[in-house]
Amino acid sequence: MPANPASASPPLVPIRAVDVIRKKRDGQELSKAEIEALVQGYTSGNIPDYQASAWLMAALLRGLSRAETAALTDAMLRSGEVLDLSEFSPKKVDKHSTGGVGDKTSLVLAPVAAAGGLLVPMISGRGLGHTGGTLDKLEAIPGFNVNLPVSQFRSVLRGCGCCMIGQTAEIAPADRKLYALRDVTGTVESPYLICASIMSKKLAEGIDALVLDVKTGSGAFMKKLEDAAFLAELMVETGERMGKKMVALITDMDQPLGRNVGNALEVVEVLEILQGEGPADLRELCLELAAWMFYVGGAASSVGAGKLTALQMIDSGRALAKFREMVQLQGGDLSAIDDPGLLPRSKHTADVASPRKGYVTAIACEAIGTACVILGGGREKKEDSVDPSVGIVLHKKVGDAVGAGESLCTIHYNSAPLAARAQTLIEESYQISEKPPAAARPLVHQVLQRS
Amino acid sequence: MPANPASASPPLVPIRAVDVIRKKRDGQELSKAEIEALVQGYTSGNIPDYQASAWLMAALLRGLSRAETAALTDAMLRSGEVLDLSEFSPKKVDKHSTGGVGDKTSLVLAPVAAAGGLLVPMISGRGLGHTGGTLDKLEAIPGFNVNLPVSQFRSVLRGCGCCMIGQTAEIAPADRKLYALRDVTGTVESPYLICASIMSKKLAEGIDALVLDVKTGSGAFMKKLEDAAFLAELMVETGERMGKKMVALITDMDQPLGRNVGNALEVVEVLEILQGEGPADLRELCLELAAWMFYVGGAASSVGAGKLTALQMIDSGRALAKFREMVQLQGGDLSAIDDPGLLPRSKHTADVASPRKGYVTAIACEAIGTACVILGGGREKKEDSVDPSVGIVLHKKVGDAVGAGESLCTIHYNSAPLAARAQTLIEESYQISEKPPAAARPLVHQVLQRS
Repeated sequence: MPANPASASPPLVPIRAVDVIRKKRDGQELSKAEIEALVQGYTSGNIPDYQASAWLMAALLRGLSRAETAALTDAMLRSGEVLDLSEFSPKKVDKHSTGGVGDKTSLVLAPVAAAGGLLVPMISGRGLGHTGGTLDKLEAIPGFNVNLPVSQFRSVLRGCGCCMIGQTAEIAPADRKLYALRDVTGTVESPYLICASIMSKKLAEGIDALVLDVKTGSGAFMKKLEDAAFLAELMVETGERMGKKMVALITDMDQPLGRNVGNALEVVEVLEILQGEGPADLRELCLELAAWMFYVGGAASSVGAGKLTALQMIDSGRALAKFREMVQLQGGDLSAIDDPGLLPRSKHTADVASPRKGYVTAIACEAIGTACVILGGGREKKEDSVDPSVGIVLHKKVGDAVGAGESLCTIHYNSAPLAARAQTLIEESYQISEKPPAAARPLVHQVLQRS
Repeated sequence: MPANPASASPPLVPIRAVDVIRKKRDGQELSKAEIEALVQGYTSGNIPDYQASAWLMAALLRGLSRAETAALTDAMLRSGEVLDLSEFSPKKVDKHSTGGVGDKTSLVLAPVAAAGGLLVPMISGRGLGHTGGTLDKLEAIPGFNVNLPVSQFRSVLRGCGCCMIGQTAEIAPADRKLYALRDVTGTVESPYLICASIMSKKLAEGIDALVLDVKTGSGAFMKKLEDAAFLAELMVETGERMGKKMVALITDMDQPLGRNVGNALEVVEVLEILQGEGPADLRELCLELAAWMFYVGGAASSVGAGKLTALQMIDSGRALAKFREMVQLQGGDLSAIDDPGLLPRSKHTADVASPRKGYVTAIACEAIGTACVILGGGREKKEDSVDPSVGIVLHKKVGDAVGAGESLCTIHYNSAPLAARAQTLIEESYQISEKPPAAARPLVHQVLQRS
């Protein structure tokens, strides 16, 4: 359906960009043809940046209807190549997260889902701002290549059922061009534009079903639950309008997920989870998301059955074996998987001690992500390179009791001045009180699925 | 005050365009420094079109405060040369109209006001859309040169006290650049941006006082009285914030002003008014506007006294003599002033007959303007050239009785196919009913002056 060339044929009456801008400015609903003309014209260079940016601002301030959002997603998707994975018999399922701190679930889910019989053609992004990125984590594995052309992407999928790469030039070029423009024109923060950007890239993977992990809390882009729910609902409806099975889980990002933040440190934790160990919150969220992947992918009759499958894939060691296969097919060094001590390690570590006895009642999650960026583990600008070895290991999380002087976390660093800056930020982000916090936040706030 | 170079010095912390866009997008008020940085950056080319257009759309949809509007006007004004006319002892007063059909008052007012002791440094525009333009009318006088450099502008002012030219490259270059961008990004129709555009150019003339003629009705850009009143109030406050004496008259443009529409035809009517003749509505509006020019320029103790002065200037022939002086100093052919038969004349004329006996109850004013453009008397695109000889002479106006077959108006044309198109439009624009219209619309709807 998204690749239907008939609906891309030029309209009989030429559509002028200025009229489309004015119509959106005045709060009217645009037709599919008008949105297509805008996206095609902009991608081909016939519509200049200054008209696109005026339209983006009008769309941000006036909003888009569900039909407009779907039309925008579809036009952006069809601006480039849409993978045809019909040669593969398993259902193609992916998971997308809106981004957080310590969120390494993708690295667990791809092998778990593939081990359970799904095909996982995963195209991911890099970290930006305070959040980490799947590609940066994968590149902490020596030799792992995320820049595969589509032909090699196919052959890895054929080999092990999952493959994790970065966006290629062929996928949704309209999104790449529009995103760069949004970044410099104050038009990033629109749920409609965010939805079209995410969904156009994800649907270009040629998937049948998609599980969305929409984060909310102090470490998420959508701090408020209602904003996360609005975006989740928009993406679910947009995907369904385009014939995909969809579900969105709104999950907690009010403190880092798991204990490790930083690229190589997160790979270590991924290996723990794949070995049936690791922190409870991370393990639980991975099982929950994998369960939904199996369910929407038709490989499980219920979410409960899907969870059982996920557990079996981990407990049997098949998920870990699948991860090893993928690492090997993508050029990664297996010895670093088998002995995580061979992953990049920082030169120094330092503990952050609790100033007093009490309970951890909150961790300013975005600040922890920023501390990791300061250490060199993330990017302040797109061009920055990333140090895979640095990061933070949290020993205490929200609800934990702590003694005076006891270590809250360990900083892994290579530069003492940077570590000092990070330490100040981390100290300020931990809130220690006499009494334990009243109630724990749930790991999954809401599940959105339209029948 | 507007030329104060101190306030144009760069701020200590660099202001980023994207932050200014986001702030306006979120409905916050921008500081004077932020608006200056935007206008200066855009004019100098450091801020690209795409950021300016995103900001313009945010400003259109979010609106600007009075302080922001004044700051924008001031920054645009100071993007170019601000004339210093302090060498002239009379008060410098101008009039600006938002544009209409058959509105030739500027050609009357400049000589009347100059004859009455004011200095009138008038920088005008060309017709665009369905409205006529002062420069096009003046150029219907053979030889009349509206493209004078500032040095010659001064010498004409010194010679006769009034001079009428087009915008020079030195005046408000930010407005020229922003206006071209607004035209193609759907950001023309904002009262705040319209106000800043008009006022930045008018205040660059170095005037002490300004009379605004804001048109409303079917032939005006602001069809609704409340929209005209909003713009009028905005411009009055903006001018006053910049230390100018201001008044705005909201006047009727629900039918053409006077009887003649078309460049040379309008010059003929101007000469009639300057000879104490001509249609009553045009004469009355000229006297009213001139009265306010004398009053705000301090040359009359009251508006009534100003009107008396205006009447005296016309009745004594001093206004006509002043007009002749200006025409001569600007290179125009005086013989065409003394014998209007020498002005450009169309090859053909044709009458539009009334389809029945009755009363004229309405004339679709914009359609009459468009008919004149179709004949060649105006521009559909900026590059089009104008035929000064064509136009329409209205014999019947709203309220007039008319017999079946009697002439409603005469079309002056050079191309029969164009005349046929214009005729259809004119026939449809006249509304003839059995009964006369209930009540005549006033010539002046409102006068806005803050004490």
